[in-house]
Amino acid sequence: MFLTRTEYDRGVNTFSPEGRLFQVEYAIEAIKLGSTAIGVKTNEGVVLAVEKRITSPLLEPSSVEKIMEIDDHIGCAMSGLIADARTLVEHARVETQNHRFSYGEPMTVESTTQALCDLALRFGEGDEESMSRPFGVSLLIAGHDENGPSLYYTDPSGTFWQCNAKAIGSGSEGADSSLQEQFNKDLSLSEAETIAVSILKQVMEEKVTPNNVDIAKVAPAYHLYTPEEVEAVISRL
Amino acid sequence: MFLTRTEYDRGVNTFSPEGRLFQVEYAIEAIKLGSTAIGVKTNEGVVLAVEKRITSPLLEPSSVEKIMEIDDHIGCAMSGLIADARTLVEHARVETQNHRFSYGEPMTVESTTQALCDLALRFGEGDEESMSRPFGVSLLIAGHDENGPSLYYTDPSGTFWQCNAKAIGSGSEGADSSLQEQFNKDLSLSEAETIAVSILKQVMEEKVTPNNVDIAKVAPAYHLYTPEEVEAVISRL
Amino acid sequence: MFLTRTEYDRGVNTFSPEGRLFQVEYAIEAIKLGSTAIGVKTNEGVVLAVEKRITSPLLEPSSVEKIMEIDDHIGCAMSGLIADARTLVEHARVETQNHRFSYGEPMTVESTTQALCDLALRFGEGDEESMSRPFGVSLLIAGHDENGPSLYYTDPSGTFWQCNAKAIGSGSEGADSSLQEQFNKDLSLSEAETIAVSILKQVMEEKVTPNNVDIAKVAPAYHLYTPEEVEAVISRL
Amino acid sequence: MFLTRTEYDRGVNTFSPEGRLFQVEYAIEAIKLGSTAIGVKTNEGVVLAVEKRITSPLLEPSSVEKIMEIDDHIGCAMSGLIADARTLVEHARVETQNHRFSYGEPMTVESTTQALCDLALRFGEGDEESMSRPFGVSLLIAGHDENGPSLYYTDPSGTFWQCNAKAIGSGSEGADSSLQEQFNKDLSLSEAETIAVSILKQVMEEKVTPNNVDIAKVAPAYHLYTPEEVEAVISRL
Amino acid sequence: MFLTRTEYDRGVNTFSPEGRLFQVEYAIEAIKLGSTAIGVKTNEGVVLAVEKRITSPLLEPSSVEKIMEIDDHIGCAMSGLIADARTLVEHARVETQNHRFSYGEPMTVESTTQALCDLALRFGEGDEESMSRPFGVSLLIAGHDENGPSLYYTDPSGTFWQCNAKAIGSGSEGADSSLQEQFNKDLSLSEAETIAVSILKQVMEEKVTPNNVDIAKVAPAYHLYTPEEVEAVISRL
Amino acid sequence: MFLTRTEYDRGVNTFSPEGRLFQVEYAIEAIKLGSTAIGVKTNEGVVLAVEKRITSPLLEPSSVEKIMEIDDHIGCAMSGLIADARTLVEHARVETQNHRFSYGEPMTVESTTQALCDLALRFGEGDEESMSRPFGVSLLIAGHDENGPSLYYTDPSGTFWQCNAKAIGSGSEGADSSLQEQFNKDLSLSEAETIAVSILKQVMEEKVTPNNVDIAKVAPAYHLYTPEEVEAVISRL
Amino acid sequence: MFLTRTEYDRGVNTFSPEGRLFQVEYAIEAIKLGSTAIGVKTNEGVVLAVEKRITSPLLEPSSVEKIMEIDDHIGCAMSGLIADARTLVEHARVETQNHRFSYGEPMTVESTTQALCDLALRFGEGDEESMSRPFGVSLLIAGHDENGPSLYYTDPSGTFWQCNAKAIGSGSEGADSSLQEQFNKDLSLSEAETIAVSILKQVMEEKVTPNNVDIAKVAPAYHLYTPEEVEAVISRL
Repeated sequence: MFLTRTEYDRGVNTFSPEGRLFQVEYAIEAIKLGSTAIGVKTNEGVVLAVEKRITSPLLEPSSVEKIMEIDDHIGCAMSGLIADARTLVEHARVETQNHRFSYGEPMTVESTTQALCDLALRFGEGDEESMSRPFGVSLLIAGHDENGPSLYYTDPSGTFWQCNAKAIGSGSEGADSSLQEQFNKDLSLSEAETIAVSILKQVMEEKVTPNNVDIAKVAPAYHLYTPEEVEAVISRL
Repeated sequence: MFLTRTEYDRGVNTFSPEGRLFQVEYAIEAIKLGSTAIGVKTNEGVVLAVEKRITSPLLEPSSVEKIMEIDDHIGCAMSGLIADARTLVEHARVETQNHRFSYGEPMTVESTTQALCDLALRFGEGDEESMSRPFGVSLLIAGHDENGPSLYYTDPSGTFWQCNAKAIGSGSEGADSSLQEQFNKDLSLSEAETIAVSILKQVMEEKVTPNNVDIAKVAPAYHLYTPEEVEAVISRL
Repeated sequence: MFLTRTEYDRGVNTFSPEGRLFQVEYAIEAIKLGSTAIGVKTNEGVVLAVEKRITSPLLEPSSVEKIMEIDDHIGCAMSGLIADARTLVEHARVETQNHRFSYGEPMTVESTTQALCDLALRFGEGDEESMSRPFGVSLLIAGHDENGPSLYYTDPSGTFWQCNAKAIGSGSEGADSSLQEQFNKDLSLSEAETIAVSILKQVMEEKVTPNNVDIAKVAPAYHLYTPEEVEAVISRL
Repeated sequence: MFLTRTEYDRGVNTFSPEGRLFQVEYAIEAIKLGSTAIGVKTNEGVVLAVEKRITSPLLEPSSVEKIMEIDDHIGCAMSGLIADARTLVEHARVETQNHRFSYGEPMTVESTTQALCDLALRFGEGDEESMSRPFGVSLLIAGHDENGPSLYYTDPSGTFWQCNAKAIGSGSEGADSSLQEQFNKDLSLSEAETIAVSILKQVMEEKVTPNNVDIAKVAPAYHLYTPEEVEAVISRL
Repeated sequence: MFLTRTEYDRGVNTFSPEGRLFQVEYAIEAIKLGSTAIGVKTNEGVVLAVEKRITSPLLEPSSVEKIMEIDDHIGCAMSGLIADARTLVEHARVETQNHRFSYGEPMTVESTTQALCDLALRFGEGDEESMSRPFGVSLLIAGHDENGPSLYYTDPSGTFWQCNAKAIGSGSEGADSSLQEQFNKDLSLSEAETIAVSILKQVMEEKVTPNNVDIAKVAPAYHLYTPEEVEAVISRL
Repeated sequence: MFLTRTEYDRGVNTFSPEGRLFQVEYAIEAIKLGSTAIGVKTNEGVVLAVEKRITSPLLEPSSVEKIMEIDDHIGCAMSGLIADARTLVEHARVETQNHRFSYGEPMTVESTTQALCDLALRFGEGDEESMSRPFGVSLLIAGHDENGPSLYYTDPSGTFWQCNAKAIGSGSEGADSSLQEQFNKDLSLSEAETIAVSILKQVMEEKVTPNNVDIAKVAPAYHLYTPEEVEAVISRL
Repeated sequence: MFLTRTEYDRGVNTFSPEGRLFQVEYAIEAIKLGSTAIGVKTNEGVVLAVEKRITSPLLEPSSVEKIMEIDDHIGCAMSGLIADARTLVEHARVETQNHRFSYGEPMTVESTTQALCDLALRFGEGDEESMSRPFGVSLLIAGHDENGPSLYYTDPSGTFWQCNAKAIGSGSEGADSSLQEQFNKDLSLSEAETIAVSILKQVMEEKVTPNNVDIAKVAPAYHLYTPEEVEAVISRL
């Protein structure tokens, strides 16, 4: 009887009898396979830190980009399918660019996040811009606008939340617990760097080096740390 | 023999042999997983109150929006998939905006509700605006127009009803019973606030705080309560 | 061998080996789940009466519309999916409006009914106006034109018949028998009202009140009864 | 091995391994469920007679149309899905109208029949005018043109034949046998009427009355008999 | 293992693991169910002869067309689905007409055959002119052009061959053997008539009469024999 | 577990779990059923020789075309579905014609081959020119351009190779071995003719005659041998 | 229970319950069947070396192209489906050509790689340029731009990485290990040639000759080695 029902409605973007959207849930599984990324918001700005999996010593570490700039005042860290993330980031770059051109001012971080999620929500709709499946990626979007610093977290269902601190990817469960213990609203940016990298260190199987960790801040402008700056943070642990 | 028949007609938007539309029923299941929302109509205006599930202390409570403004005189509370609700609300905002522009007067609450339901009904039709599946969300639409205050309730099938009071979401069954006991046509707005939040309190597993409850009124203009105003209502219980 | 055959032809709008269109038959099942509606034609005009299922005392009875005006001289009662009925009625309103505009005279009741059925017939065709499944609704269309009063009955297959009296919905079987016993061509409009409501009373599980019954007449103009007028008919039983 | 093959080709309009088109065969089954219609050609003109199934005494018999005019000189009787027949007849009316307008003369009966069959053949092709399934109806097309009276018979495959006499619908097998016995080329129109109605009488389960039988002739103009004229034919039996 | 493979590729127009196109093979089966047609080429011209299955004595034999004119100098006999053949013939008539108009001379028989086969080949491609399944018909195309008389044979795969003599349809196997025995390059047209009809006689279950056999020649113009001319050929046997 | 996976991805043009494209492999099977064709390149030009299967003595051998001219300087031999080959050849003829018109010089043999393969590669893409399945044909393309004589071999995957000698079709395995033994770079055109036909003779089941073998050369212009010229080559064996 | 879930979402480009994209994984399998290709970056430029499988001595080795020029300053080696690689290379050639035309300077190697991957990512989207399945090919892209020499590696998922050295194809596992042992940042171009070919030699089953190995360098311009130059490298081993 249950089996019979299931035959009435199958598709990429349909509900199961329990009211679930499986393709979205499976895409979320894709993210659980991804490398860990962490974001921490402070009054001075937002810190992003990511694990980079360098599968071969012959790989150029700087070509494994897990943190990308969206606009001067917005950056994002990602976990999941990198090619999908690139499409979303490219879309966000065009949106923020257009906004600057049309209104002569930067797009707010929330509007940028909403624009990303609108695209993510419409998978399976056959639009020109949308994909035929959910985007298999979660983003941590760090930004700074008229409301000060902010950190957003998006998932493949096109939903987003504002956070003080958040971890995504394969180590997110343990990392989130550590963040709840160590976070407080009065952290300095430097303390946030230390917390983010020290938590990454816990969930990574290898030793933390400037080769397998990337750090960026938006404070108030986006800046990706040089290997020396990353080394400096690591040496503080 | 039954199995054979079922093979003739499968699709997102088709009838089962018993005359049922399973995708719509499954979408209604999605709402049963959602957080509880309550609406109460009084002669002074309409009150909306919702439970907010803050899954992590690092989440910014104000970024979990379960009550949204559609127009100056219309707001709505939602239960189910938040990303779907955003699409519907965005559609309604454009409709009310266009109406004001074309006719120089606000759209009635019923017309706004009808416009939302027209979009919801056409799922699976391949239109530009419609979705390939039903919208997995129920709305409580509170408004005030030339006919005074009104409260509408919509479901994923694109049907709507006018109510005096209504609860949706995972706790709706118990909440609806309580509303029937406590509602009467002569409630003041303040009494409606107290009833709505006290019923929310019964169905929520955690303590009620300004962090996990949102309240709004349309009386006659839409107003989302500040944490202090929410605190004030809670303290009256 | 039978199973093998069935694999050659599956779709929303295809014949079964016995020459049946199952989606249409399933849609007809949807109507058997609907509330009962009754129409009675007299020389003075046509009476429509419907049961309204008010599932909660907090629901506004007047917002449960089961009888709708199409044009000054045409109204209809419905049973089945209300959202589908609204789409058909909206279509008919546009058609009658256009006809008045183009020809300067009201559209005949038969032409209006034909226009509704043309839309209903083309389900699954991918047209802009048509649905991807049959409309899950039956209508009783009451009107008055140059040929005097008339009553039409439509089903989801896009077929229509002219009737003297007809019941649709979950109680239609018993109601039709009663109508055959009590109908005669010389009924007055007032007698038709009494017959329609007394038969509704038989098939409804609850007490008949102005809250759970709607009555309308086309004689020769469409008029939906006020609660007082409904009360007056009920008191005559 | 047989099962494996069948998996290569499924669709509404595909061949089975034996070279059969099942959807067309199933549509022909739909016609076997239909009411019986009979056509008889004489030198004076063509007679059409149909059984009308009046399922309720409250139904208006004249609204059950099983014989329709296509043009002044062409009419048709139908068996099967009436809504499908209406679409075909409407198409034929437009074609004959256009022909009169373009060429200043009536369309021949064969060309009209060909135009109907062209539409019927193209089911499943996704054209604007065609259906997604075969038309579930057979027609007896009676006409009179420069070649004198003629009678055509069409089936859902889009094939047509010219006949001297033909029965379609649930009673067609027995009726065809009777027609072969009783038909000869020198029948008068009046004799043809008697034969057609007397054979209908044999295959119908109820008493023949002007309520459940329609008669029309094309001699040389289309004329649908009044109830009195039908009564007169019945009284001759 | 075999079953698993077959799941990768299903469609109307796809290869089986053995490199076969089943829909084409099934269409060829449809032709094996058809009535027999025979073509014989002589130096004086080409003869076509077909069996006509008159399923009822009430059918007009002349309306069962199995031989059709394409242009003054080309005719064809068919076996299989007659409605499909009509579509192909209609296409060929337009092509030959256009060719005369554009170039002021008749289209060659080979070009006409190629045009027919181009249409037949593209089934399942979603073109405006093509079908969603193969055409279920074989043609014998007889013509006379600057190269003298010629006879072509086409099958549902869109392939064609030039022949001296050929039989198609249910009796083709036996008829082809007889043709090989009796054909020689020096036959007169009259001898070809006799051979064609005498072979038809062998494969038909009924007595040969002008009612159930049609004959045509292209010598050098297309001519369909009158019943008297057919009778004359039969009497020569 | 394996079966479950296979359910995720089915289609005409999709990979199997082992990274294979089955429709292409099945199309290659279609070619293994075809008649044998052989190409041999010499410094004087290229020779093509094909087996023609004349299934009936009544077939006109010259109408079984297995070698076709593409342009003055290019010809091709084919094995597999002849109707598919005609489509490819027709496409190539248009391309070479356009090239001559646009650039005033003949298209190179490699560009022509590439154009053919581009069309072959895009099956299942829904383009106007492409097919919904792979082309079931292999070609041996012989040509002569500014680089001298060349011989290309194409398969249904849209891949091509340049060869000195190559056999395709049902006898290709044995024929390829013989070619490897007998080919050398200094063959004269006449020796190539002898080798090609003598190898065809080995793989054909019947005696080699001008009726069942076709020969063509591009040296430097395309020329299809007359029966007398074929006879002359056979007599040299 | 697991099986039931899988029925909700099937398609070329959908997630499995574990968050995997099987068509991409299967395409990666296709590459494991391909011939081995190796790229090595030095400060003087980049070396590419590929194995060519010459399946028959009659094949022209130079027509088996596994290394292709994209622009003056970019070349690529490939493993997998050659016809797919040609489409990608053709796309990249147009992009680099357009870039030169629009901006008057060469496109960077990373932008070229990104353009290739954008096309690869969008498979199954129904775009005009994209394929209905993933491209079954991996590329090693060697280039030289304002940032000096660079080597990129792309896979069918549309992801790319920058590398110092990389092997792809059937022998990639062993070759990658050897590269890690032998690579250092100070290699001369000549040493890189020796390393690449000596590793190819290890993974190939046959003797290395100028016939079955191709070598190219970008230093700073693309150059495909002549057989003599290849011979020279081999002789150094």
